[in-house]
Amino acid sequence: MRIVAIRDIVSPIRSNIANAYIDFSQMTASVVAVVTDLKVEGRRVVGYGFNSNGRYAQHGLLNERFVKRLLDAKPVSLLDDNGLIDPAKCWTVMMANEKPGGHGERSVAVGVLDMALWDAVAKAARVPLWKLLAERYNGGKHDSKAWVYAAGGYYYPGKDLEGLKDEMRHYLNLGYSCVKMKVGGASLGEDLKRIDAVLNIVGSGDRLAVDVNGKFDLPTALEFGRAIQPLGLRWYEEPLDPLDYLAHAALSTQYGPPIATGENLFSMQDARNLIRHGGLRPDRDILQFDPALSYGLVEYLRTLEMLKASGWSPRRCVPHGGHQFALNIAVGLQCGGNESYPQVFAPFGGFADDCPVVDGRVALPDTPGIGFERKADLWSVMKEIA
Amino acid sequence: MRIVAIRDIVSPIRSNIANAYIDFSQMTASVVAVVTDLKVEGRRVVGYGFNSNGRYAQHGLLNERFVKRLLDAKPVSLLDDNGLIDPAKCWTVMMANEKPGGHGERSVAVGVLDMALWDAVAKAARVPLWKLLAERYNGGKHDSKAWVYAAGGYYYPGKDLEGLKDEMRHYLNLGYSCVKMKVGGASLGEDLKRIDAVLNIVGSGDRLAVDVNGKFDLPTALEFGRAIQPLGLRWYEEPLDPLDYLAHAALSTQYGPPIATGENLFSMQDARNLIRHGGLRPDRDILQFDPALSYGLVEYLRTLEMLKASGWSPRRCVPHGGHQFALNIAVGLQCGGNESYPQVFAPFGGFADDCPVVDGRVALPDTPGIGFERKADLWSVMKEIA
Repeated sequence: MRIVAIRDIVSPIRSNIANAYIDFSQMTASVVAVVTDLKVEGRRVVGYGFNSNGRYAQHGLLNERFVKRLLDAKPVSLLDDNGLIDPAKCWTVMMANEKPGGHGERSVAVGVLDMALWDAVAKAARVPLWKLLAERYNGGKHDSKAWVYAAGGYYYPGKDLEGLKDEMRHYLNLGYSCVKMKVGGASLGEDLKRIDAVLNIVGSGDRLAVDVNGKFDLPTALEFGRAIQPLGLRWYEEPLDPLDYLAHAALSTQYGPPIATGENLFSMQDARNLIRHGGLRPDRDILQFDPALSYGLVEYLRTLEMLKASGWSPRRCVPHGGHQFALNIAVGLQCGGNESYPQVFAPFGGFADDCPVVDGRVALPDTPGIGFERKADLWSVMKEIA
Repeated sequence: MRIVAIRDIVSPIRSNIANAYIDFSQMTASVVAVVTDLKVEGRRVVGYGFNSNGRYAQHGLLNERFVKRLLDAKPVSLLDDNGLIDPAKCWTVMMANEKPGGHGERSVAVGVLDMALWDAVAKAARVPLWKLLAERYNGGKHDSKAWVYAAGGYYYPGKDLEGLKDEMRHYLNLGYSCVKMKVGGASLGEDLKRIDAVLNIVGSGDRLAVDVNGKFDLPTALEFGRAIQPLGLRWYEEPLDPLDYLAHAALSTQYGPPIATGENLFSMQDARNLIRHGGLRPDRDILQFDPALSYGLVEYLRTLEMLKASGWSPRRCVPHGGHQFALNIAVGLQCGGNESYPQVFAPFGGFADDCPVVDGRVALPDTPGIGFERKADLWSVMKEIA
């Protein structure tokens, strides 16, 4: 098995939506195809990857450094004992001559390539990625379905309370039982009205999470926390700057229900600092590290090891990004579930077309690889690249 | 004053040298020119910037996001009350729609542009940058010279103890009184022989710093620290992964003399975490945040504010990178000094040709701007861009 070409495109995933921190009108994603010389049942094995929303396409970094290093490596140096591509060896090659620290952007470029490498490996092994992961890293154990929630409730021009309620009704009709909405982009009073409107649709606090996207300072996070504490919400997400561990620790002394964060920490080292210094609680809080943005699954395995060594269960992990890659990881490594974007970030949001969400859970197809071929709108973008 | 064009080139700064973590054979730097419509004494004002060594050129990120945002902004939105470019306003424009966290790579792209913007502002104000900074941010106070040290002592093929000693003798002959050498890329026994050889040249421990470049784990850093503690070295640099704050705190309970770190932390938030969680000691330890790699001087001013609020003097700061930008900052904001690369990373290492190092200190020229025009080898690269 040998990599013969790596191609990438920049795809717009723009939208009129906004969260409390950024708008998405200029958002882009890289999509890559890792083309191999291996044929399985007469078809060439090609692995695909993309980066999830919130960080931008990495065409420059991919081609300036990371693709080049993979293509320049001796092909045999990238293989495991069975002659298949070894993503861990590829990782070492990609990160050669990279200094420690500075985990951003390059973590996305490497993450996109890592996703494609795992897709190729699973296709070469003729198994879905979730099954490969269960066998290699989880003693064969896996879940049959993953818990997912509908992430939406963005601010956008002209959207009123009725629009917000219609959106949430739509998610329930699609089969979701838990939803998430953005907060922190309006006044506290206005956000509380928005939360109340959504609670009227979903029925109870444990079916609604709220997401600040890192916008609050500590006094504002404390004030907002006091206001929502009686509602018993599913979680209070990214209340603070993701790197302000001390403020998280202070908030967790005052806000009792679950806190979620981690989507903007892009390495095992940064995740470890959150665990060490962030004061989070292993019995309730949620960790949202996104493998597609964080040097891929090779690094995510290190993060899971670190968590176990620190007394945290993989069940506390619900990755950001709403992609099939993390969904395979959630099922194969028995994490807590996965984000889902039913309406936004097309064609990257959402899962296989023939695996509907039922009672807030989704099954995975048996297709070899990550399963992109079972999601028509995404596949129509990917198949043009290779 | 209006930006009319921004151009960039990728310049090799490759070398056969290596530190304990990476080799520099593929290293590159971005050099940018920010061309304005302003003329001073008949000459068009152009600001120049580049990134220091250790991180790569950022041609992709510059052109995909940051240059575009500056050029798309309304020109008046980038100006201060006097009609000059305001680097803080430029910073806000460049970082629009960028999420928090993930401080790497983009911090370099923004840092390169920020350097060029300050060069342009100081030229427009017809003052050297150090004087502009002293007037704007330091109550008019500044130093007359900066303490500098010669960073070298790299590993390279065929280099033996005699070669290392010759290199250090050369630095002393150039006027340096303190030197730095790499360690951690050989066995402890071999490194101790290398250190002993250099001590024989420089004469005393306070004239020699050693640099691990983040290679050691905690047990190795403790063992190495025990071995060098009796030597009274100037400092023990980057003994550990730059983001492993807890390990730094543990080491500082065991190693008494000065520890230095920070060149691989690229934001105020990361620097703040080092101060909060790293156990460093404000009476002796050294902070090496490099403004060229860390979103520029606009962010560095935030870092200095954070340090003051935390009880740390700017005198504890000796930036990484060996560039004239940080040298201006060191003099104008009265930091502790600056790194210098007399022999490597040409043409970016070193200062103005007509400002020699005397007794380990260097003065700055009175040229408006950062002073690139007074360093012939660098200027010959820069002048071709605009």
